[in-house]
Amino acid sequence: MSSILKQRIRYKPYLSKICNNPKDLIPLFKNEDRLGWSGFTGVGSPKVVPDVLAQHVEDNNLQGKLRFNLFVGASAGAEESRWATNNMIIKRAPHQVGKPIAARINSGDMQFFDKHLSMFPQDLTYGFYSPKDKILNPREILDYTIIEATAIKEDGSIVPGPSVGGSPEFISCSKNVIVELNTAIPSFEGLHDIDMPELPPYKKPYLYTQVDQKSGLTGIPVDPNKVIAIVESKIKDKVPPNTPSDEKSKKIAGHLVDFFKNEIKYGRLPENLHPLQSGIGNIANAVIEGLVDGDFKHLNVWTEVLQDSFLELFENGSLDYATSTSIRLTEKGFEKFFNNWDDFSQKLCLRSQVVSNNPEIIRRLGLIAMNTPVEFDIYGHANSTNVAGSKMLHGIGGSADFLRNAKLSIMHAPSARPTKTDPTGISTVVPFASHVDQTEHDLDILVTEQGLADLRGLSPRERSREIINQCSHPDYKDMLLDYVAKAEFECNKTKSMHEPHYLKNCFKVYENLREKGTMKVDSWD
Amino acid sequence: MSSILKQRIRYKPYLSKICNNPKDLIPLFKNEDRLGWSGFTGVGSPKVVPDVLAQHVEDNNLQGKLRFNLFVGASAGAEESRWATNNMIIKRAPHQVGKPIAARINSGDMQFFDKHLSMFPQDLTYGFYSPKDKILNPREILDYTIIEATAIKEDGSIVPGPSVGGSPEFISCSKNVIVELNTAIPSFEGLHDIDMPELPPYKKPYLYTQVDQKSGLTGIPVDPNKVIAIVESKIKDKVPPNTPSDEKSKKIAGHLVDFFKNEIKYGRLPENLHPLQSGIGNIANAVIEGLVDGDFKHLNVWTEVLQDSFLELFENGSLDYATSTSIRLTEKGFEKFFNNWDDFSQKLCLRSQVVSNNPEIIRRLGLIAMNTPVEFDIYGHANSTNVAGSKMLHGIGGSADFLRNAKLSIMHAPSARPTKTDPTGISTVVPFASHVDQTEHDLDILVTEQGLADLRGLSPRERSREIINQCSHPDYKDMLLDYVAKAEFECNKTKSMHEPHYLKNCFKVYENLREKGTMKVDSWD
Repeated sequence: MSSILKQRIRYKPYLSKICNNPKDLIPLFKNEDRLGWSGFTGVGSPKVVPDVLAQHVEDNNLQGKLRFNLFVGASAGAEESRWATNNMIIKRAPHQVGKPIAARINSGDMQFFDKHLSMFPQDLTYGFYSPKDKILNPREILDYTIIEATAIKEDGSIVPGPSVGGSPEFISCSKNVIVELNTAIPSFEGLHDIDMPELPPYKKPYLYTQVDQKSGLTGIPVDPNKVIAIVESKIKDKVPPNTPSDEKSKKIAGHLVDFFKNEIKYGRLPENLHPLQSGIGNIANAVIEGLVDGDFKHLNVWTEVLQDSFLELFENGSLDYATSTSIRLTEKGFEKFFNNWDDFSQKLCLRSQVVSNNPEIIRRLGLIAMNTPVEFDIYGHANSTNVAGSKMLHGIGGSADFLRNAKLSIMHAPSARPTKTDPTGISTVVPFASHVDQTEHDLDILVTEQGLADLRGLSPRERSREIINQCSHPDYKDMLLDYVAKAEFECNKTKSMHEPHYLKNCFKVYENLREKGTMKVDSWD
Repeated sequence: MSSILKQRIRYKPYLSKICNNPKDLIPLFKNEDRLGWSGFTGVGSPKVVPDVLAQHVEDNNLQGKLRFNLFVGASAGAEESRWATNNMIIKRAPHQVGKPIAARINSGDMQFFDKHLSMFPQDLTYGFYSPKDKILNPREILDYTIIEATAIKEDGSIVPGPSVGGSPEFISCSKNVIVELNTAIPSFEGLHDIDMPELPPYKKPYLYTQVDQKSGLTGIPVDPNKVIAIVESKIKDKVPPNTPSDEKSKKIAGHLVDFFKNEIKYGRLPENLHPLQSGIGNIANAVIEGLVDGDFKHLNVWTEVLQDSFLELFENGSLDYATSTSIRLTEKGFEKFFNNWDDFSQKLCLRSQVVSNNPEIIRRLGLIAMNTPVEFDIYGHANSTNVAGSKMLHGIGGSADFLRNAKLSIMHAPSARPTKTDPTGISTVVPFASHVDQTEHDLDILVTEQGLADLRGLSPRERSREIINQCSHPDYKDMLLDYVAKAEFECNKTKSMHEPHYLKNCFKVYENLREKGTMKVDSWD
């Protein structure tokens, strides 16, 4: 037992539960077990036990024979990919990242369902993902929860690492808990603020009216009898370097900064905006950079994942406070973070995903939500999940939690993307989104490097003009306007002019893409 | 001035604002004015002033020349249809009922946008529907609000009639207010509970943790200087008789009652269920009847509109408390209601639609939400608004407010409906919903007279089997299973097996319906 491990476990009865050889845990796991893992956006997930199990499967050719139902708040780390490679996952929810996982889902080997991240842990505790014909034992919904911790408090409660995610719910509804105490990273104690699940009819309001308010619980309470093993982990999270912002994403950010300045000028936003939610990726990073350059001050952030770029906002004094359910920093980012712990830890807090993504608070605070879709259509529906309608990318994540409830619901994307044969072979603006995750009733602003479409208060036919004219790539503008003309011509015959579609060929672009490597169709007939 | 009018106006300075000839108000209204009306689901909307304006247009051939932007919480009464007939509406939001209105929308004469009912009044007060290039005056977003009242309190606050809807927001952001005091019906004082709008960053939690809690405000506060006229109205709301439940809706109700009993048996619902939300129509009525017959006790209702059927629930002792934003009773229903005022008024409360439909409270209370779609697809997306993708029916209403946030999100519909030539020419279960308002991430239960599909925790391919086998009409079952086979065959080629679609012909049923009067297609090629 390392001295650092002993120091981190301040609830002494747990010392007897330390498992020095994680392989000893292998026999506990049975085919078809229901497992919860900590972790969110690739940080804070368990590593040692999943790897030991994967090794066991590889060593004994148990691929496809030892398989689990796996629930993680959002995406886990590389261990999950290894499980997918070994066909160790029967069913997975609610969000995943990693080529081997997507490959299993899209080949049909793994069942996957993606649910709004604010709802998934709640639905799990309701017993919605349990066998329907058995009496529900709300404390035995999961067989095992494996949670990465950075400390155990005197009361036995678990201090997570860089993410909270669904861990409070998993622990509350799990029969057994295995803790991976990570001694390769410092303790994150004091950074979390935990709301434990309450179920109707006993659920109380979340009283937060500002981003920096806390409930005060810094660890996840657990019944010590549930904790069957504590394993030391020395494996760090591996977060790839941030995608640098390119010309297109800078243009998108520019349109958005102009838009925000206009909203302030005309009295629809205060000078420090409203709390921001922003996704992952180069456009999100460019927007953050744009806000810094745009001289915005006293910003606040209420989001689901923080990245390195937010540290810069703190450093230059633009950002007052940030809260999320995950802090997904690069190794360099974490270094900076821990070197300035006293400062950053006063300005930052990690909550459960049920809270970070909760409609109640998102709506109350009047968030500005910004996310990237796969595509959006001429009437303002967006596809966040399935390429060409059928192929799963990562899942809906928290996008719809935020976009449905924010004051300003914004989606941003490049107007076109390349295929092997056509530099603008894929248009982000399509006639009819091949999968709808965000509806026309949800979105306010769409923006590409071409421009910004303000959909607020527009009827569908007004929207089609605004979206095509502002957002579509010049290579597609005429083609999309032709679609509108064709759809309106046809729908005029049947007096269906509210949201005119030519259903017969509205999906023609996908067939064309598959056959000819481009969405550029010759005609709509 | 009638003595009853004088009695109802307890704030005496208003007596000088009584307008005995509503025609005197005509010159106030200018083409393109922005108007708010009280009303929700056809009750509580203004009648006298709208009729006077319509008469003015008819008498002076001003059809298409005197036109307004009209905002009503949801649908108004017959006066709105008369405006539509006279082409008096430029733009309308967020929900409408009435053939002339739908005809104008679908012919393209009237711009319409439908927004979630919980968000619409909020977005209006944000200035989202105002000109974007003018400094926002939050007290002059609307030119006029015309509100039907049943009393004016000593403090000048307005006591609405059978609906609250968006009136608190309209009044707070309107330059001028005209009150229609309806003396043909009794005062509704004491039935309402008003939360006035608060905007971020000053918005506070709604502290309601039970359906029967109130804020205590029984009238809508208004700056007396805004009130420019009070008109007496003697016109009653006309609510058509309830659609009696037929065999199909009784079967649907039967499946749902069985489902609820099972949920109780296996510990996923308490014996008195959770608060119920239910829509309008014969299926909703059959479900209420089924709950009565099923011997459920101590039920609670948190919904947007109450109908006659709920009075029966009160009378037989099944229902403890009900709250909504509108009480849409028939004349007979209102008679019964007022005859038992002392009893009913203790068990019932009307709130603003921002509160009745608020995600915060819907999620906290763990509602059971039940609504009827136009159609739903094999993966669990539902169309609530546009027939064949393009033709507007009524609007999304509150369906997505409830279905996104409820504990149990249920949609019910007959499995097939007739066309002129085929008694089952229209299938409710389709390959791909021609318009998506509720996504696969939102819905838990789909039910037709054929059976009930429980989608909780199912992957898309599991859902397609469950939905087709449980819900589709026998005339369509094989055809839909063929679609699944075709889609999976095609998608297997491109390894897109998450949610397999054959996009080329997924909408073929609509073309077939238009051309041949039935959705029964010969093949999917």
